[in-house]
Amino acid sequence: MAFALTLSELARWVDGDIVRGGLDLSLTGMAALDAASPHDVSFLGNEKYYGQFLETKAAAVIVPRGVTSGPEGTALIAVENPSLAFAVVVRHFAAAVRKFAPGVHPRAFVDPSAVFDPAKVRIQAGAVVLAGVTIGDGSDIGPNSVISDDAVIGRDCRLMANSSVRERCVLGDRVILQPGAVIGSDGYGYEFSEGRHMKIDQVGIVEIGDDVEIGANTSIDRARFGKTIIGEGTKIDNLVQIGHNVVIGKHCLVVSQTGISGSTKLGDYVTCAGQVGIVGHVTIGDKVTLTARTGVTTDLAAGQIYSGKPARPMREAMKIEAYSRRLPKLIDRVKALEKALGDTVAERE
Amino acid sequence: MAFALTLSELARWVDGDIVRGGLDLSLTGMAALDAASPHDVSFLGNEKYYGQFLETKAAAVIVPRGVTSGPEGTALIAVENPSLAFAVVVRHFAAAVRKFAPGVHPRAFVDPSAVFDPAKVRIQAGAVVLAGVTIGDGSDIGPNSVISDDAVIGRDCRLMANSSVRERCVLGDRVILQPGAVIGSDGYGYEFSEGRHMKIDQVGIVEIGDDVEIGANTSIDRARFGKTIIGEGTKIDNLVQIGHNVVIGKHCLVVSQTGISGSTKLGDYVTCAGQVGIVGHVTIGDKVTLTARTGVTTDLAAGQIYSGKPARPMREAMKIEAYSRRLPKLIDRVKALEKALGDTVAERE
Amino acid sequence: MAFALTLSELARWVDGDIVRGGLDLSLTGMAALDAASPHDVSFLGNEKYYGQFLETKAAAVIVPRGVTSGPEGTALIAVENPSLAFAVVVRHFAAAVRKFAPGVHPRAFVDPSAVFDPAKVRIQAGAVVLAGVTIGDGSDIGPNSVISDDAVIGRDCRLMANSSVRERCVLGDRVILQPGAVIGSDGYGYEFSEGRHMKIDQVGIVEIGDDVEIGANTSIDRARFGKTIIGEGTKIDNLVQIGHNVVIGKHCLVVSQTGISGSTKLGDYVTCAGQVGIVGHVTIGDKVTLTARTGVTTDLAAGQIYSGKPARPMREAMKIEAYSRRLPKLIDRVKALEKALGDTVAERE
Repeated sequence: MAFALTLSELARWVDGDIVRGGLDLSLTGMAALDAASPHDVSFLGNEKYYGQFLETKAAAVIVPRGVTSGPEGTALIAVENPSLAFAVVVRHFAAAVRKFAPGVHPRAFVDPSAVFDPAKVRIQAGAVVLAGVTIGDGSDIGPNSVISDDAVIGRDCRLMANSSVRERCVLGDRVILQPGAVIGSDGYGYEFSEGRHMKIDQVGIVEIGDDVEIGANTSIDRARFGKTIIGEGTKIDNLVQIGHNVVIGKHCLVVSQTGISGSTKLGDYVTCAGQVGIVGHVTIGDKVTLTARTGVTTDLAAGQIYSGKPARPMREAMKIEAYSRRLPKLIDRVKALEKALGDTVAERE
Repeated sequence: MAFALTLSELARWVDGDIVRGGLDLSLTGMAALDAASPHDVSFLGNEKYYGQFLETKAAAVIVPRGVTSGPEGTALIAVENPSLAFAVVVRHFAAAVRKFAPGVHPRAFVDPSAVFDPAKVRIQAGAVVLAGVTIGDGSDIGPNSVISDDAVIGRDCRLMANSSVRERCVLGDRVILQPGAVIGSDGYGYEFSEGRHMKIDQVGIVEIGDDVEIGANTSIDRARFGKTIIGEGTKIDNLVQIGHNVVIGKHCLVVSQTGISGSTKLGDYVTCAGQVGIVGHVTIGDKVTLTARTGVTTDLAAGQIYSGKPARPMREAMKIEAYSRRLPKLIDRVKALEKALGDTVAERE
Repeated sequence: MAFALTLSELARWVDGDIVRGGLDLSLTGMAALDAASPHDVSFLGNEKYYGQFLETKAAAVIVPRGVTSGPEGTALIAVENPSLAFAVVVRHFAAAVRKFAPGVHPRAFVDPSAVFDPAKVRIQAGAVVLAGVTIGDGSDIGPNSVISDDAVIGRDCRLMANSSVRERCVLGDRVILQPGAVIGSDGYGYEFSEGRHMKIDQVGIVEIGDDVEIGANTSIDRARFGKTIIGEGTKIDNLVQIGHNVVIGKHCLVVSQTGISGSTKLGDYVTCAGQVGIVGHVTIGDKVTLTARTGVTTDLAAGQIYSGKPARPMREAMKIEAYSRRLPKLIDRVKALEKALGDTVAERE
């Protein structure tokens, strides 16, 4: 990852202002504040790291506007969003490293009925592409991944190692599947009859919009019939469970180990923090935020932050939580009251 | 999925009564109530969807007995269990679509010592079947799945993409592994000695009964020695963790993201809703239901519903939960009492 | 697993004292207390099983020092740690069964630029080893596993079926990946800009120390830049999520379904029981124990046991939990006080 650029080039790329430092300062690497060497660029993305910032050995640091001083001798570039600016730097250099060599690896298996342009698609070793699959230009089908019958993969997608797309599921453009992700597993649907759980065939599909990313070992169940839908721009973390017939809106964030049960609907711009659980058949409004481990059992109105189990508006949930901490003292106060009242009565008798 | 049947044929298949509609009404598709077109069959499986029922455009709806009216012009067929009846319809037509072509794909690897009838078993591209494996007739070994040494797979099983069965594990008949499921990973067993955790070899197996289904990316650990057992007819959802030496009875339901620690025993017909956690070495009686996210730390008696962490009979858990909500008011009442008592005392002085 | 040894040989292996039984007693198998036959060795590893111990049919039982009597006719060997001693027995015999045949399977794909000694490394059927990978002697690369570009695998590692190591990640010696484990998935990093979540490239790696074990379907994200680090001797269970830039110390235990968010640091000898959740950017001291399902939101001091959400010292968490159970009675007491005070006032009026 070695590279070289000058401070003035860096400022231009990230659309930032040089607060301090020579225009020709040479930068040859990038690192976190506490790991940076005297030729590295770093960034201050979170005020939590201000202490590290003051002690960094970085040659230059991308800082939020308003920061005008720092460790002696360190160049500073001010931007609106240092984390995003740093991402631009990283992407620029990573692009030079990344290689996309189209073609079907001799150790991949591709059914002759699959439709794609081998001059524009990469199918890596051990990948299995079954009958009737369609793959858009620019897509990269990773090693030992599986795309089952009649699935449709859009353009510029990236399916990583050991990921699986089951039959007839549809991925939009620029969809990323991290390793081990499963798209289109059967929904968990049974009917109880004569002492046994009878499997209900799950004949629907999963439909994933453009620019969606699905984390490692996450599973998204196909609809019983119809579609499980993940809206455009939504980002799903690792080890998340999405049940059958769930509909997730656009630009949502669903953090690791969250579980969303069957037929639940999320609006747009919903955030589920880690380990959230949502029952089936409820509706979550647009721009709702669920804090970590919230347990949702009912519909939730748009635009609010919810916490706790059962989910309540965060302020209320925090109040109950705070009052719980006061319980031991409350019990003491009641004890004191009982004694005082006893004394009062006794005195008068 | 286009097909055509008459209302009278449909009634016969699902063993239902025609409440309304012409015997020769032609039905050519199937869909959910809110997505149905004027030639589709649909069903009312949950009273939550009664509103959608009243506005559906479906040609015919399978309804619970007792429902005698509905949207104008829509045919109605009454049955005991509409959801199950609809599953019969779906299965009937899906069967026409599904294809089972036996044979070993040239891109599969099968050790010569594996025992199975290639005229009756399907081994798909990229599957790896190692030494001494036995596979029963009618089984379908999916793309890039792995069956390790000496494992035994029953008849009519279906191992989906990227699933793994480790050495010596035993699957009954009609077992389904969704993509990424892992059977027989090592149990989490270590002994602490001289500052290090020493691995305890896990030499037992996993034994799975007939008609069991295992969800996507679920992991079931092999026994330290002896067996981890999943009883006949039990259905396990996605991303579930089953520890070593766990014994799960027959016809249980274990919903997504539940974790069951080592050596715990579940009776028959136990239901664990989503995100439940159960410690090791406890026993859960027959027909116990654990509501979502229940945390079990002790043995639980049969036939009851439990909630909360630690798990309590649901009624009790709900009472404590309800009382927690009343805490802020309770504190106000104690404050009022303190004031009143103070006044009383002051008045008398 | 049949074998034969004498009681005196057994005592020597486990460094134990024969409490009872003939030196030449022949032992031909091993089993749990309740499953043992009259020629088996068993062990009493947990006092919970004392009842089973009294009724076992085992020929010999390895017991903790201090146990001097048992079921009639059963030989006893006393040791410090019976579970560890039994592991020695199991390992001894399992070693005879296990086979390590080095060589590259003709159905594996190995890029010509990969560096390893084919006489000392085993690469199984369907494994994919990409450009620039290095593999140490004695390592076993399992069926359908994937090692991406420039990754480094130490000596005597074992990568099981369908596991994935992404580009440039580094594994120490004797590292075990259970089936489906994912090392080096992209961290969950986005910046919100113009109504969309923009992906931040994750160009760092995962670095795993010696003697680490990673469970089935666990995912460990690569650093945004720099390293996600798992310290030497740490054991991670199934379905665990480790976020980007997390640093876990040496000899930690991270039990199933735990999630650790980005940039959090754990000291050495930390234990996370099942289903724990830890937010990002906090620091957990050495030798901290988090009980099952603890939710950590702040830094935690070393050497203590924490429980609850938010995490508190266990004693405090248990007190609050116990007081919650007393809430219904407390409300009754307040009601009684209100009535008594009312009566007192009324009486005086």
